Amino acid sequence: MRVLGIDPGLRCLGWGVIEVSGSRLSHVANGAIRTEGSDLAERLLMLFTGLSEVLEQYNPDAAAVEQTFVNRDGAGTLKLGQARGVAVLVVARAGLAVGEYAPNAVKKAVVGVGHADKVQVAHMVRHQLPGVDLAGPDAADALAIAICHAHHLQSAGRLAAALKGAA
Amino acid sequence: MRVLGIDPGLRCLGWGVIEVSGSRLSHVANGAIRTEGSDLAERLLMLFTGLSEVLEQYNPDAAAVEQTFVNRDGAGTLKLGQARGVAVLVVARAGLAVGEYAPNAVKKAVVGVGHADKVQVAHMVRHQLPGVDLAGPDAADALAIAICHAHHLQSAGRLAAALKGAA
Repeated sequence: MRVLGIDPGLRCLGWGVIEVSGSRLSHVANGAIRTEGSDLAERLLMLFTGLSEVLEQYNPDAAAVEQTFVNRDGAGTLKLGQARGVAVLVVARAGLAVGEYAPNAVKKAVVGVGHADKVQVAHMVRHQLPGVDLAGPDAADALAIAICHAHHLQSAGRLAAALKGAA
Repeated sequence: MRVLGIDPGLRCLGWGVIEVSGSRLSHVANGAIRTEGSDLAERLLMLFTGLSEVLEQYNPDAAAVEQTFVNRDGAGTLKLGQARGVAVLVVARAGLAVGEYAPNAVKKAVVGVGHADKVQVAHMVRHQLPGVDLAGPDAADALAIAICHAHHLQSAGRLAAALKGAA
């Protein structure tokens, strides 16, 4: 099963695809879609086109997006919200459900603690996906989200199997 | 020239189309796209599909979106941002530029003062677009945004003509 993770942002949207076979994870691809300029419409269109191409090329079976941290900066939250809306839409258009995880849940799943910094996250992503070449911190975060979603799906699968066995 | 106005919202997205001939405005259509349930992906997809249909059916030449009011409610701003991102994207995909106006600018253009309430806005929209049947307050706001954009385009047109005459 292929899992896509997305770290949404208007300036830079990170993405990462991993392969899940039983309890084994492996890296497929990762990257970042960068937008420049001040034209909001153009930038959202670049995110839409770029992320649609990622889905077409890697054809994931599941996807998850970071649950944006809502801080006190309203203008920043709005920008992030616009980019996130487009990211969720692209996944929904491909017929996939969208998993959502808070940054702390992602860090806990990958590093073991909820307050890890970006360097620790990137380090553990490299550890869990041997041989990965990270396109940048946003791509590393996206792979971390994919790993978190894979763990969640594995747990759900084990639970379903256990319940089936107990029936 | 046809102008589309959009009042974005995750729960309800208002839209309105007007025809502009010289300084004369007339109503073409207005409506609201309502989304229900808790699934964000599904709701954004409904906004995307619904608004894409409006653009296909009415084929506007210009479009404008309300510049969302950024308040202190981060979660609300994020929801609005996600809906707004999808709305701007749909317009951009149709190859149109997106005008953006703050709520106060819209009210000033339609009512004459920046602090008008929804009842006053709806009243003046009815006055400026005789015979209009409003689909609701969000559709009325969307028509107000279209009127504001039309005024802006008319001023820009007059300015261009004056500069041409002076040259």
